[in-house]
Amino acid sequence: MRKTLLLNKDDVHENVQMPELISAIEDAFAAYESGDAQMPPKSYIDLPQYNGDFRSMPAYLDAGDWDAAGIKWVNVHPDNGDKYDLPTVMGTMIYSDPENAFPLALLDGTELTMLRTGAAAAVATDHLAVEDASSMGIVGAGVQSYTQLRAISEVRDIEEVVISDLDEERVADFIDAFEDEFDIRAGSIEEAASCDVLSTVTPVESPIVPREAVGDHTHINAMGADAEGKHELADEVLLDAKLVIDDHAQTTHSGEINVPYNQGVLTDDDIYGAIGDIVLGNLDGRTDADGVSVFDSTGLAIQDVAAAHVAYEHAFENDNGYAFDLLGLAE
Amino acid sequence: MRKTLLLNKDDVHENVQMPELISAIEDAFAAYESGDAQMPPKSYIDLPQYNGDFRSMPAYLDAGDWDAAGIKWVNVHPDNGDKYDLPTVMGTMIYSDPENAFPLALLDGTELTMLRTGAAAAVATDHLAVEDASSMGIVGAGVQSYTQLRAISEVRDIEEVVISDLDEERVADFIDAFEDEFDIRAGSIEEAASCDVLSTVTPVESPIVPREAVGDHTHINAMGADAEGKHELADEVLLDAKLVIDDHAQTTHSGEINVPYNQGVLTDDDIYGAIGDIVLGNLDGRTDADGVSVFDSTGLAIQDVAAAHVAYEHAFENDNGYAFDLLGLAE
Repeated sequence: MRKTLLLNKDDVHENVQMPELISAIEDAFAAYESGDAQMPPKSYIDLPQYNGDFRSMPAYLDAGDWDAAGIKWVNVHPDNGDKYDLPTVMGTMIYSDPENAFPLALLDGTELTMLRTGAAAAVATDHLAVEDASSMGIVGAGVQSYTQLRAISEVRDIEEVVISDLDEERVADFIDAFEDEFDIRAGSIEEAASCDVLSTVTPVESPIVPREAVGDHTHINAMGADAEGKHELADEVLLDAKLVIDDHAQTTHSGEINVPYNQGVLTDDDIYGAIGDIVLGNLDGRTDADGVSVFDSTGLAIQDVAAAHVAYEHAFENDNGYAFDLLGLAE
Repeated sequence: MRKTLLLNKDDVHENVQMPELISAIEDAFAAYESGDAQMPPKSYIDLPQYNGDFRSMPAYLDAGDWDAAGIKWVNVHPDNGDKYDLPTVMGTMIYSDPENAFPLALLDGTELTMLRTGAAAAVATDHLAVEDASSMGIVGAGVQSYTQLRAISEVRDIEEVVISDLDEERVADFIDAFEDEFDIRAGSIEEAASCDVLSTVTPVESPIVPREAVGDHTHINAMGADAEGKHELADEVLLDAKLVIDDHAQTTHSGEINVPYNQGVLTDDDIYGAIGDIVLGNLDGRTDADGVSVFDSTGLAIQDVAAAHVAYEHAFENDNGYAFDLLGLAE
């Protein structure tokens, strides 16, 4: 009965229930800060001849009640849309039993990435947004925006949504997807940024959210920056905020803070702490004294492993996915 | 029509034809020495609580006529046999199109590893054994021994085979598998080592092949050592031989030469060169003046990628494997 489960995009989508994923991602952040996780640095294969790269993201985490190991193989090929009608970023994930290394599942890592990224924002929002947050702004209506709203509306009672993007078709699609559930409208960056919660999910290199646009107690999830030079929020937003990161090495290298950090405009003194330390209770989340808060999320390999754990456990229980004998061991 | 091919153990076995694989592995060694390959260092996740580890092996290579990218995720869990009735080592491979990163295939990496390891020994044997080699000794009748004989008999006209192992059942199984094709018998290490070609595929840490046992012009493929402390051949064998390696960093760290190298008994002056430089013609293979030759093989990620390329190309042409829509892009 030793089979490997193949979980494609639909299987991942169906089997990763957001509330459970948010809890697993919270566990993963805590395990990482407790030293109960292993996450070797991402390794890169750069292919300038194709204007692309591959990244390998192996990880192990022990959340106490469960542990999980795996690797995500993910690429960034910006010409894919024009040249091949393929997404810029695709991921494939191998999820293994840490105890004996049996490959439990092979998963679509693209859908998994979107889900775990939404869940990370939800964990941060849960600890950092005002309790009665009811409005949410989203800047950028691309593939990552959907799971931002899905996930964050699990931790706060979001009623009003402002979606901001220069691409009107994207905005219309986003509104279509959510208009039955939320009071949703297209709006400017300023309107989005004045909401109780804001998620930015754009690839810009020049900040598009000015300090004065941000509400007095807005919590911002800065999700877009994933490479050197990317930068969505004005430096003053970052400097004035309670600034929380997912990982020091990754955020200073390629997260929202990478540009001001490497210019010396923003230093370690401006960083409040890691989300894992807030989850663990080593640091406070939002307090009454706080104004703007920012979560700089780069995305950690332990999030992928935690999400794969949720997907696999559900799919296995529900007999979803395609079970097959990868290694010839089932006979 | 964008589907990912799932290739299980049988699919890999059927679609990787040894002559083509040997040629692809030869291309891979050449590409590596030419600077036309990328192979980031293996990264490890150590799980002492389970007496096991995971290794990630990403690679890209450009062989001129073809290029290939992928990653193998492989483990070493020595207690697996006793505790779980599972192999100590299992592998899963993701094979991607370098141009746009589409995941072309997910493969059983265990069968793939055995095949590419055999093929590496065959490449070395082709360049380093005497032309008229007709006898082959194998020390160690475990899972890796089979592909040694399969592969090497493609490059030399092997008639006589001596298999040596303390485990009589393994020896009997090995003889069973090959007695129709070869004049094969069980024998001592000395008898195996006096053949024209010898492959050692054991996990020992104390040398079992003494200098005096080795034939005057025997070519030895030292395949067993894959971790610090492992060591199959007496130091005198290594010091007297034309000593060829697959990769300097890997062999000095965990290959057959790692123990004497790190004790200072064997130095860089004792290493003749890399197999890739012999393939490229930068260095001679066997010359009339040569006596014993040794190939220290640790196994490179580029071999896995080259083997996956062969498996995928054949399976795709022959409509083998299970084609599925991993990423939800086929509609």
